[in-house]
Amino acid sequence: MKLGLFGYGTIGRGVYTLVDNLKEKYNLELKRVFDLPNKKEILGDKLVTDINDIINDDEIETVVEALGGHDLPYQVISGALNKGKNVITSNKEVVSAHLEEFLSTAHKNNCSFLFEASVGGGIPIIRSLIDNSKINEINDIFGILNGTTNYILTKMSDENLSFEDALALAKKNGFAEANPTADLEGLDGVRKINILSSLAFQGNISNDDIYHYGITGVNKAILDDIKARGYVLKFVASSHRDGNDVTIRVEPTMVPQGHPLSAVKNEFNSIMFTGSTNDDLSFYGKGAGSIPTASAIIADLVAIVEGRGYIEYSNKNKLNVNTKKVNTGNYYIVHQTNDAEIVSDVSNESLEAAKFYARVL
Amino acid sequence: MKLGLFGYGTIGRGVYTLVDNLKEKYNLELKRVFDLPNKKEILGDKLVTDINDIINDDEIETVVEALGGHDLPYQVISGALNKGKNVITSNKEVVSAHLEEFLSTAHKNNCSFLFEASVGGGIPIIRSLIDNSKINEINDIFGILNGTTNYILTKMSDENLSFEDALALAKKNGFAEANPTADLEGLDGVRKINILSSLAFQGNISNDDIYHYGITGVNKAILDDIKARGYVLKFVASSHRDGNDVTIRVEPTMVPQGHPLSAVKNEFNSIMFTGSTNDDLSFYGKGAGSIPTASAIIADLVAIVEGRGYIEYSNKNKLNVNTKKVNTGNYYIVHQTNDAEIVSDVSNESLEAAKFYARVL
Repeated sequence: MKLGLFGYGTIGRGVYTLVDNLKEKYNLELKRVFDLPNKKEILGDKLVTDINDIINDDEIETVVEALGGHDLPYQVISGALNKGKNVITSNKEVVSAHLEEFLSTAHKNNCSFLFEASVGGGIPIIRSLIDNSKINEINDIFGILNGTTNYILTKMSDENLSFEDALALAKKNGFAEANPTADLEGLDGVRKINILSSLAFQGNISNDDIYHYGITGVNKAILDDIKARGYVLKFVASSHRDGNDVTIRVEPTMVPQGHPLSAVKNEFNSIMFTGSTNDDLSFYGKGAGSIPTASAIIADLVAIVEGRGYIEYSNKNKLNVNTKKVNTGNYYIVHQTNDAEIVSDVSNESLEAAKFYARVL
Repeated sequence: MKLGLFGYGTIGRGVYTLVDNLKEKYNLELKRVFDLPNKKEILGDKLVTDINDIINDDEIETVVEALGGHDLPYQVISGALNKGKNVITSNKEVVSAHLEEFLSTAHKNNCSFLFEASVGGGIPIIRSLIDNSKINEINDIFGILNGTTNYILTKMSDENLSFEDALALAKKNGFAEANPTADLEGLDGVRKINILSSLAFQGNISNDDIYHYGITGVNKAILDDIKARGYVLKFVASSHRDGNDVTIRVEPTMVPQGHPLSAVKNEFNSIMFTGSTNDDLSFYGKGAGSIPTASAIIADLVAIVEGRGYIEYSNKNKLNVNTKKVNTGNYYIVHQTNDAEIVSDVSNESLEAAKFYARVL
């Protein structure tokens, strides 16, 4: 099978290496790589600088999109699917915004659209969720979906680093992007929990409807106080369905010490889902980094080679997403005076007036 | 697709119910159930009391073996596979002893042999391990594979129950069999880690070569002392490969508080594997009980319906299994005097003379 790769950055290079390792076993040939002209020296004749040189190449059956961003990836994915090419991507931004469109284009053109690497890095969470939802009604999804912020919170909590130093270390070790806003504010988590929830609940969800509150307000004093209360602060994405009413949130959450999520450290992710017959299932692994992400892309590639590339999806359920700021249960609130307390029955106003807040599990 | 079910016990009843829920979606019909004549009242005309009434029924394409034990399951599975029927089982005893034979019979007769439910209850560990091993060299498997003993250790540790009371409670709640010896002595763990290791390492392993030491010697005083030292006692199965040299063990293990396994409680299982490219991946879910096990059987059934029933396996690697009693690292030893200590460089003799011992992680 001949392949085209879009993007020779961190993830693209990982894909390049792993395809090379497996090319004989699965009869693969990476024919062309799209990137900027300055990659000519490394990529030689494989390099193309016009996306159509891959999209219009009839020999190429499968493409991997590893560009990042939205507009160009959207063109690449929809262009390739419309030509009947299989597409694999790790791009949660574009997948979360166009999931139904991409899957229905793939179905129409009898090709595959796979995106295991878009959530949970190397964890096979999407395949497991899809398989499980065939025999089980999944009503809850819960976990740590962002490796960057979990890395920062761990370094602050366990190694006494300041927020700034922890962020700098994350960048240095390849766990944070140059512009980490999407991670820190929770937008990355929003996109990932959207993808999982859409698949589990079989309905369209807009990223804009998902409530999120970031971790930029956190500091060492807050983490010390949380620890003294017997908790660990985690940046948790959660999704709950009750019929077609859905509550999806990404927010700082205090989990009790000893809770399974409290042991999830550094760039690791952990995702749990709860089904009607199967109870809790949970998955843990590296949620960020070049090789875990690339290996999830390769797992999708092997699925296509073995004829397991079909994903069933319909937007048959008209979901009502609860966009309220306040959730049920207790909140930990840090006031502008730096006094902190745990309160129940919190109001919108008190959250808005707070310096920082977190849900209490 | 017409189905035959062998055994209408705890698991068989779960399978019966779940097949009924999905019969329209996947066009399934449970045609015959093999069990003893006293089930006639419940099963009516579906009941057969001769296994050949299912094996020789050409309309039945797929059978589920939920009998337990070895001899009759062996006859059923090999009889059905030789007739070209797909076989699904949760029986770790028979799978661990005949994995290669069953898979090669299935390949020869162009049918499927699937056994997801034999390890980890409802956790999709076998499929994940197989998929992952295609792109990754797995060298370590590590975890809690036995729900019965984890339930007992949790109740003793967290709720101050005696060993006898915890075992009685496990039986009452359906997490322990009438004869729990295979669980308590580690033989159940041996069979499960054997299945995972054989698949990951692609070589035959005899259950007899796997070192195991049980938890019957444990008591409240020992668990209190372990807790005071900052550890939690878990019954851990582990497997490590270095080329064709393999070390596989099932033994009581002290894990530090805060370690991911320390949060695995009651009948839950947690299994981690570590690969050459993908680092640690871990899976958590209910490892015992009727519905989790039945739902893993149904997941296999859906895989067959969807054409995903093929498992690649060869015994190409001639593995040397290390059968030594003593492992590397530190041991916690309870002497006959009830004094306990943690020692390194332990000898065979001191383990044999001990009242109880555990590895220290």
